[in-house]
Amino acid sequence: MMLKAKASDCCMYFCLCAQQIDEEVSKLLQLKAQLGGDEDKHTFVLKTAKGTRDYNPKQMAIREKVFDTIIRCFKRHGAETIDTPVFELKETLTGKYGEDSKLIYDLKDQGGELLSLRYDLTVPFARYLAMNKITNIKRYHIAKVYRRDNPAMTRGRYREFYQCDFDIAGQYDPMIPDAECLKIVHEILSELDLGDFRIKVNDRRILDGMFEVCGVPDDKFRTICSTVDKLDKMSWEDVKNEMVNEKGLASEVADQIGEYVSMQGGKDMAEKLLQDPKLSQSKQACAGLADMKLLFSYLELFNVTDKVVFDLSLARGLDYYTGVICEAVLTQTTSAPATQERNGPAGEEGVSVGSVAGGGRYDGLVGMFDLKGRKVPCIGVSIGIERVFSIMEQKAEAQAEKIRTTETQVLVASAQKNLLEERLKLTAELWDAGIKAEVLYKKNPKLLSQLQHCEETGIPLVAILGEQEIKDGVVKLRTVATREEVDVSRAELVEEVKKRCQQL
Amino acid sequence: MMLKAKASDCCMYFCLCAQQIDEEVSKLLQLKAQLGGDEDKHTFVLKTAKGTRDYNPKQMAIREKVFDTIIRCFKRHGAETIDTPVFELKETLTGKYGEDSKLIYDLKDQGGELLSLRYDLTVPFARYLAMNKITNIKRYHIAKVYRRDNPAMTRGRYREFYQCDFDIAGQYDPMIPDAECLKIVHEILSELDLGDFRIKVNDRRILDGMFEVCGVPDDKFRTICSTVDKLDKMSWEDVKNEMVNEKGLASEVADQIGEYVSMQGGKDMAEKLLQDPKLSQSKQACAGLADMKLLFSYLELFNVTDKVVFDLSLARGLDYYTGVICEAVLTQTTSAPATQERNGPAGEEGVSVGSVAGGGRYDGLVGMFDLKGRKVPCIGVSIGIERVFSIMEQKAEAQAEKIRTTETQVLVASAQKNLLEERLKLTAELWDAGIKAEVLYKKNPKLLSQLQHCEETGIPLVAILGEQEIKDGVVKLRTVATREEVDVSRAELVEEVKKRCQQL
Repeated sequence: MMLKAKASDCCMYFCLCAQQIDEEVSKLLQLKAQLGGDEDKHTFVLKTAKGTRDYNPKQMAIREKVFDTIIRCFKRHGAETIDTPVFELKETLTGKYGEDSKLIYDLKDQGGELLSLRYDLTVPFARYLAMNKITNIKRYHIAKVYRRDNPAMTRGRYREFYQCDFDIAGQYDPMIPDAECLKIVHEILSELDLGDFRIKVNDRRILDGMFEVCGVPDDKFRTICSTVDKLDKMSWEDVKNEMVNEKGLASEVADQIGEYVSMQGGKDMAEKLLQDPKLSQSKQACAGLADMKLLFSYLELFNVTDKVVFDLSLARGLDYYTGVICEAVLTQTTSAPATQERNGPAGEEGVSVGSVAGGGRYDGLVGMFDLKGRKVPCIGVSIGIERVFSIMEQKAEAQAEKIRTTETQVLVASAQKNLLEERLKLTAELWDAGIKAEVLYKKNPKLLSQLQHCEETGIPLVAILGEQEIKDGVVKLRTVATREEVDVSRAELVEEVKKRCQQL
Repeated sequence: MMLKAKASDCCMYFCLCAQQIDEEVSKLLQLKAQLGGDEDKHTFVLKTAKGTRDYNPKQMAIREKVFDTIIRCFKRHGAETIDTPVFELKETLTGKYGEDSKLIYDLKDQGGELLSLRYDLTVPFARYLAMNKITNIKRYHIAKVYRRDNPAMTRGRYREFYQCDFDIAGQYDPMIPDAECLKIVHEILSELDLGDFRIKVNDRRILDGMFEVCGVPDDKFRTICSTVDKLDKMSWEDVKNEMVNEKGLASEVADQIGEYVSMQGGKDMAEKLLQDPKLSQSKQACAGLADMKLLFSYLELFNVTDKVVFDLSLARGLDYYTGVICEAVLTQTTSAPATQERNGPAGEEGVSVGSVAGGGRYDGLVGMFDLKGRKVPCIGVSIGIERVFSIMEQKAEAQAEKIRTTETQVLVASAQKNLLEERLKLTAELWDAGIKAEVLYKKNPKLLSQLQHCEETGIPLVAILGEQEIKDGVVKLRTVATREEVDVSRAELVEEVKKRCQQL
């Protein structure tokens, strides 16, 4: 495997500029390709990429059901949908995710643009708005995103996973779109029937105001914010310890924060905090608290305050939030795994156990893509669908529920030999009439194996053809569950199948 | 931008093995990174990656309609669905696409496995079957695939595009699944209403037998095959020229091929060719021709022979086909662009103008993933959906058809001020009753702007609240199209909206 390069090639490396390096790299890569890769072709591994999985037909049936519920809700709220490519220019994603940027998948430089797989749907959405100069839209987007995270697949954490995002962009009167986003989370979690849940809300302005009045130095707001974010899995002692010993906060400052972040409540609490002698000294805290009051008044009209809690400990990871933030958690203890949802920091420490939805207001992100910095205020929520899938799968398994993976209404069968042509003809007639029909791909299948196929796949009806039936112009229509059989005239078969399938 | 490398670095290049090259490559890439890329960061370009596009809400509405038609057809035929990750281990794709492998997108080596974006859905399907030891399945898969092709987006050719695949895997009696695949293409193209079409069929065994009896050397079968594949856009003279002058075939051999590939017909032609003194000497040609006869007899039962042509010039690109191959073309002249469909070689030369579906039998592919080489016979077809989208978009534009991008049934409005709370309350009532409702996010919107929103987005009904209506417990229900207004009691509003929307 040794290879000689000419000395003259070598001398080129004394003086290199970027383009020359490119050329040399590609030469070397070509040499390598000629040598063959490092892999041993004989130890071929049959697997999907680390952190990814296939969906089998059963999982797809569950996935379709969940998506259907979510999409119906988004459409009920008047949302349009868009789609963006799975990869973006690398620079589009640069500087949007802070520390988590290291988890972005880059594509290999094969010449041309430098590309990365999307990390979430929010940044591509902001890019889409800026690029098309859209200032008003209510849209949903359901698609896969990619994070080079440490996968924990048994707990529903993958490197390729779905996000279901609903966002409202536009300059509107305060808190109305924000309230609708929370209403949507409430509707979806109720409809999916995952057990009891709670939706925590807070506001970045209240958090920042709190840090300000407690005496956190300006440059430590974000890092202290991410420590606060760990309160849902760490005790206050541990969180304080991190603030003081790792992040160098004064102990008294941490204690003051500790008092605030233990507070939970509703509209009352917002009113009370507006009177708080310390917090009320922060302008932005007051703005946030006034909006929180308004938000709760709208949530009352939407009849969802039973599940919504104003929680001062809610911080959320990403930098780009500017106002209301929210996160929904399931409150029942369940063995189901935690998963990534929108903007949940992808690292192990960032995933709240039980978190199934999250989001917030990001009024500055679109402006980052606009040359003139024109802002488009946005608020959005994301459903953490992988976790929902896991729970639904476990439920289905626990109930030994039989999930159909096809929708076939009738199997065209025969009890006698040499009736393949007749079976195919009848099957085509049913297809052409819009009936979901199957026929076994065998010349002379046994009736038993045809009936077994129905049992296994849940096909409710069998249309049985025999010499006699063909002569009489009828079909023996059998109900698989009851084994009951009746002769139906060929002309009435389509109507009869439709009628029976409606009754099932 | 000049950089000095040490002479000692240089000397390393005299003796290199693959791993050393790797290391040197990564050093050079680091140097390049330090130098900065070629791009000027200040000329930030707001765009999607080359060869890709966003789908706006109108395009999504069309896309949904097309997918719905296709999925309904697949389900009518009893298909399940699966999903696979967007990237595969690089080695999974290696050796499956011949020359087209150069078009595969690789991911950057960021440590861990070497990954590539999927190039089609067929190879991941075969990997899925082998990995899960599945020997029987009828499945569809609709997902995006990736090719580093020269994009021609105005003609519907993208680097990221959808494939809609339907495949039947399993050992069955001959030609029954093959006939169903053609029936499916027939159904979908008819339902999509794209104008007249033709489905060409041929068989790799017939092609190989033809090459054999015409005297093509064994090692030239594939390359001559790909030249034959160009007959749909090149004259016979040009094709012959390529065979003789580029690929070194004897002129007489090319002429003999020319006679065969000009033949088109149906079952008759298969019967005639079985008597052909030359072709009948090839065992595999005879096997292919006998199956072609059988295939047509099934197609007659399926009532689709009006559109299916046995065409000896149909060759198709990829290596892995082993039996029946097919390709559907639109026969009306249209300005719509050609697009990539399954296994259409991605290069400019491989895309038939007008091709909207294609596929074939690939009995050996799954075996390539099985350590013991166990084969699972498969046949599949793929709908070239991007082209269909383009045609539908053009149609919609030509007809100035108004495409709704939302499904909202009713806008909750008010003519007077200070009724935001009342509007929000009523909207929530409608949502909770399953009505698709919107409300403007303004405290005091003008009635005119509320009605304009309905006109613009196609919302058919407006529920107008005023002081009087609230006092009377009614809502003024306005039909946008007719401007007709009636008072409806609040209790009956939901039923009334449902009733009216059914009538629309």
